[in-house]
Amino acid sequence: MTIRVGILGAGGFTGQELIGIFARHAQVELVYITSSEYADKPLAAAFPQLAHPAFGNLKFSKHPQVIADAPKLDAVFLATPDDASLKWAPEFLGAGVKVIDISGAFRLSDAALFKEYYGLEQTAEDTLKKAVYGMTEIHRGAIQKAELIANPGCYPTAAALPLWIYRDLIDFSKPVIVDAKSGTSGAGGRKEKDGLGYSTVYENFRSYRTAKHQHAPEIAQELSRATGVKVNLRFTPHLLPMYRGILSSAYAFLKPGKNAADFAAAAEKVRNETFLRARENVDAVELKHVQHTNFCDYAHFLDENTGVVQIVSAIDNLMKGAAGQAVQNMNLMFGIPETTGVI
Amino acid sequence: MTIRVGILGAGGFTGQELIGIFARHAQVELVYITSSEYADKPLAAAFPQLAHPAFGNLKFSKHPQVIADAPKLDAVFLATPDDASLKWAPEFLGAGVKVIDISGAFRLSDAALFKEYYGLEQTAEDTLKKAVYGMTEIHRGAIQKAELIANPGCYPTAAALPLWIYRDLIDFSKPVIVDAKSGTSGAGGRKEKDGLGYSTVYENFRSYRTAKHQHAPEIAQELSRATGVKVNLRFTPHLLPMYRGILSSAYAFLKPGKNAADFAAAAEKVRNETFLRARENVDAVELKHVQHTNFCDYAHFLDENTGVVQIVSAIDNLMKGAAGQAVQNMNLMFGIPETTGVI
Amino acid sequence: MTIRVGILGAGGFTGQELIGIFARHAQVELVYITSSEYADKPLAAAFPQLAHPAFGNLKFSKHPQVIADAPKLDAVFLATPDDASLKWAPEFLGAGVKVIDISGAFRLSDAALFKEYYGLEQTAEDTLKKAVYGMTEIHRGAIQKAELIANPGCYPTAAALPLWIYRDLIDFSKPVIVDAKSGTSGAGGRKEKDGLGYSTVYENFRSYRTAKHQHAPEIAQELSRATGVKVNLRFTPHLLPMYRGILSSAYAFLKPGKNAADFAAAAEKVRNETFLRARENVDAVELKHVQHTNFCDYAHFLDENTGVVQIVSAIDNLMKGAAGQAVQNMNLMFGIPETTGVI
Amino acid sequence: MTIRVGILGAGGFTGQELIGIFARHAQVELVYITSSEYADKPLAAAFPQLAHPAFGNLKFSKHPQVIADAPKLDAVFLATPDDASLKWAPEFLGAGVKVIDISGAFRLSDAALFKEYYGLEQTAEDTLKKAVYGMTEIHRGAIQKAELIANPGCYPTAAALPLWIYRDLIDFSKPVIVDAKSGTSGAGGRKEKDGLGYSTVYENFRSYRTAKHQHAPEIAQELSRATGVKVNLRFTPHLLPMYRGILSSAYAFLKPGKNAADFAAAAEKVRNETFLRARENVDAVELKHVQHTNFCDYAHFLDENTGVVQIVSAIDNLMKGAAGQAVQNMNLMFGIPETTGVI
Repeated sequence: MTIRVGILGAGGFTGQELIGIFARHAQVELVYITSSEYADKPLAAAFPQLAHPAFGNLKFSKHPQVIADAPKLDAVFLATPDDASLKWAPEFLGAGVKVIDISGAFRLSDAALFKEYYGLEQTAEDTLKKAVYGMTEIHRGAIQKAELIANPGCYPTAAALPLWIYRDLIDFSKPVIVDAKSGTSGAGGRKEKDGLGYSTVYENFRSYRTAKHQHAPEIAQELSRATGVKVNLRFTPHLLPMYRGILSSAYAFLKPGKNAADFAAAAEKVRNETFLRARENVDAVELKHVQHTNFCDYAHFLDENTGVVQIVSAIDNLMKGAAGQAVQNMNLMFGIPETTGVI
Repeated sequence: MTIRVGILGAGGFTGQELIGIFARHAQVELVYITSSEYADKPLAAAFPQLAHPAFGNLKFSKHPQVIADAPKLDAVFLATPDDASLKWAPEFLGAGVKVIDISGAFRLSDAALFKEYYGLEQTAEDTLKKAVYGMTEIHRGAIQKAELIANPGCYPTAAALPLWIYRDLIDFSKPVIVDAKSGTSGAGGRKEKDGLGYSTVYENFRSYRTAKHQHAPEIAQELSRATGVKVNLRFTPHLLPMYRGILSSAYAFLKPGKNAADFAAAAEKVRNETFLRARENVDAVELKHVQHTNFCDYAHFLDENTGVVQIVSAIDNLMKGAAGQAVQNMNLMFGIPETTGVI
Repeated sequence: MTIRVGILGAGGFTGQELIGIFARHAQVELVYITSSEYADKPLAAAFPQLAHPAFGNLKFSKHPQVIADAPKLDAVFLATPDDASLKWAPEFLGAGVKVIDISGAFRLSDAALFKEYYGLEQTAEDTLKKAVYGMTEIHRGAIQKAELIANPGCYPTAAALPLWIYRDLIDFSKPVIVDAKSGTSGAGGRKEKDGLGYSTVYENFRSYRTAKHQHAPEIAQELSRATGVKVNLRFTPHLLPMYRGILSSAYAFLKPGKNAADFAAAAEKVRNETFLRARENVDAVELKHVQHTNFCDYAHFLDENTGVVQIVSAIDNLMKGAAGQAVQNMNLMFGIPETTGVI
Repeated sequence: MTIRVGILGAGGFTGQELIGIFARHAQVELVYITSSEYADKPLAAAFPQLAHPAFGNLKFSKHPQVIADAPKLDAVFLATPDDASLKWAPEFLGAGVKVIDISGAFRLSDAALFKEYYGLEQTAEDTLKKAVYGMTEIHRGAIQKAELIANPGCYPTAAALPLWIYRDLIDFSKPVIVDAKSGTSGAGGRKEKDGLGYSTVYENFRSYRTAKHQHAPEIAQELSRATGVKVNLRFTPHLLPMYRGILSSAYAFLKPGKNAADFAAAAEKVRNETFLRARENVDAVELKHVQHTNFCDYAHFLDENTGVVQIVSAIDNLMKGAAGQAVQNMNLMFGIPETTGVI
């Protein structure tokens, strides 16, 4: 089988990563990429490192005005702003095209929360109902049958996956604290802008959007869904002076009666998950080990003195945190091996 | 007044910082610096950036064998390994020299804890009794009368100072979590060694010594002293891919009945402290703002949803976290203005 | 003597550096700083690291509309765009204020070259005649009597100073090649803009403006002035993934009959220059040794095989390459010790 | 065809890169990797990022004592020190195994030069005669028939390839100057050691081994071979504060009568070379464009004012500068498509 794929908004970091994955993906033919900035220009205009016939001779198209502007596709990846995804997801679904949306448009099932955190009305409520949240290891069954994937945010992937693994060992009636640190490719786009200039980021470190970050309700929603209780989350992202990767340090409280053996058993349950990789201890969870891969490395530390369980995880924000997980999901939707192109 | 000063172990990062401060300090004459590696060589052999007559023509001496090897001093800074400080602090005190010890030898008042965390016997118990813990803003009165200062560790300074400011607003019966991030100059010495090579640190991030770091009991001791209750601390240091600065993120629980106004009042109480600098919010606490200064920037975020109080602080680990605070303390011991040479 | 000083355009990197120097300068009172972006705001609005009463309570003023808007000054530093300097240098000179211009407005004595490289008409020809080129070690005598200094560019300072030291040993009838590498603070301003975003600079290296950089004619002019022959220069600047410093590698040809002893003699001649610092060989010329200082480190390598003389130098682009040299020049203009505030 | 491959000394940067390439190479089976440090340990002990069954379950063997210790191989890559290669290349050749030597043992055809620059006797003179220098695009014919490849150094690849392209346009009777800049992965190995600690490299830049670097005679030899004249080279390598890539800036003199059209024609001649990629101008030759690829990007600038031809090139030192080119050569030796596994 060959899957005919398009990418809307292909001129950014995620677009570049998807294009790189598809070059190694035996069953994908990339036939359509759009960009307002690079319209009518070859791939190499946006990504000079891809200046070679081996990367094909695809050109960027303008963004479509109407769905008929797009060629016949089997799947489309929306690497577009939230409002553009609200518009295009229903259109492509209507044309029988499977949609993997990488924006935040369909991640929050509560329209009021969406309004609060994204500043947008949820104008596609019917489409929202069809959306499956694409945290692959958690929702694999639903993803296989889905027509529309809400691909998870980078911080939610890093934070929620390992907390889900240990979900039965944590007392979710108490607060969960996530102190997360990201390289710049996760914190912003390709364009230079306030806060991401070299002289601002280099030899510096700080938190941002501590009071209100749109990934906080997404993490809470996923943990609440997994546990059946409303999870109270304190989430703080930070900007690392580097490029690639997210390290998430979660601090939670041990459920009474649980112990080290229970943690080993929980990790054992996901032993066959290709992309979940248990490390021997939290200090061995390093960004260097996951860069340019689709792995989520994780480990825990159980502090008997305080009852705090520390769960540390690392991902490449552009792979498992965006493009890599999106392709995992696409593979499942089309019934081909989940790891194709991403290992 | 001119204070005749010596530095034992002056060839490292802290020695360099002290030498830089003394060059600007109107009342210090630096007369004695020792180093095994640079013995008999000029200052510029260790610090080529200081190759100029303006920086004096001091040479490194060998480490003393006996106290008589040292010239007559008013004060000595011990930038030596812990065991060397155990030996030399009593000797210099015996010779009537005021001692500022920058090692960990006299920080922990409990010899058993010292053994556990430093792997050394506390062989100078009598001297230990004379040691005043040099967290300047907290112990100013005792420091003024002290003959021996146990200069605080870099992480303890960053973490404990702002928690002390807000000590009446935190429920210390619950765990306190400190997630701290340091540049490489705080995490290791001048020598290349395992874990601090360029290819290991660059474009990487991870925790280290999560299970057991010698600064954990030091922070807990200081908080317990300030609050009268045994503080349960979960402390995790991380290594940033940069050089200078520590950001400490403390997560604690609000004491029932306390509110935003109480935080404002607590900050107001220390308004006149030169080196404590309140920022408008936690995201405005940045390493770039404190580098090459003796300031401790801090702010808090009160999350009403979880009851978590987040207290973020930033220092330059070589200044307020080591040499700068050491000179603050020396100034107090000699009755000269506390800020001399460090602002 | 107290010199009343103003800075026009004080909100950028050079302004920050000047303000830092004046805080340590015993004979300067900084009374006037202007900025369009920070008008009516305190110093700390632009430079949060300076948020402290110790740094004074100076506020930014609007840029002046007419000269009467400025207070009475003894000296003004123009850290303004070239066209603003063309306007304000004559105005301040007319009001009896000594001017140190840090822009490129008065560096090139040939108005046609100025037009070609700066894209501006030289509208202040009479003022241009009064300008003394402020390469301090070369033009000290003229600087002492000057009313207007054209402060040198950062690359010209790095490249021309050591070539001037060895000027009698180089065959200037043959081309001189300068391959220069700069940190980002020398290559651009404070604002994020194309080419200086974190993701563009980090883990990258390249040349820029190889075909035409405005510092090329400035270097050639200074070398031609020193040697009496028209120097043919090939100048290529590069952007380093770091912040502070310029390393200039000049490749020239040995004048027939000259040898190693002549190089030693030439270096000996400038031995008393405070800020020229000979290193033992070119590999010992490092950016780390000059950062945050006003030194120009230099060394040469004479390759007998090819007849190529390699002259390597390093400066801090914000100090000796901008603010530091500007203050050296101001000191000379007011007859106070040249090193005041900059060592 | 499946090529059974071994790597001696597989625990370093080049070993890691080779293993990564072979994971994508359809016709290679990697059966033997040796390491003294990691003997008897799995791949992931040396390279934690490769901790996954997908990367096979190969273990490191001890280095062989005698050739019989090694399994039956079709090809062996020697990522060993020079003296180990001198020993093992003849042994493997004698056993009928094709050898790609990544050390410097067989690069210099002149044993006296080898002694001078490597400090070793050339003890394998007969083997040396069989060695083909593996600059693929230049020696493709000989490589196809070779039993032993001396794989080029990283700087020689970066510098010599584009100079070879333009060899007829340069006056090689005059000196050629190469000012080269490398990330740390090219300048040293995996181990922390003097000069490659984080605090030494970060926020720093300098040259090293200016007077004598072992890649200088290798570049000169290759250019002399290509032109028939003894090329006089001035070569200076520098260490960039980053990880991956080499930028080589060559300055040479135009051959009389040559012009811009001749440069276009020379580039046109190599248009079909997959890995030689002409850029529109020298400022567009960036390390970011070649990282993690086997491309050599290049461009020239012809300065009519000085007669200097500036030839700039960029490679990934671990790919085209080491492992990538080695695999290109192996592919040719076994008659399979040259780009297999490296594009």
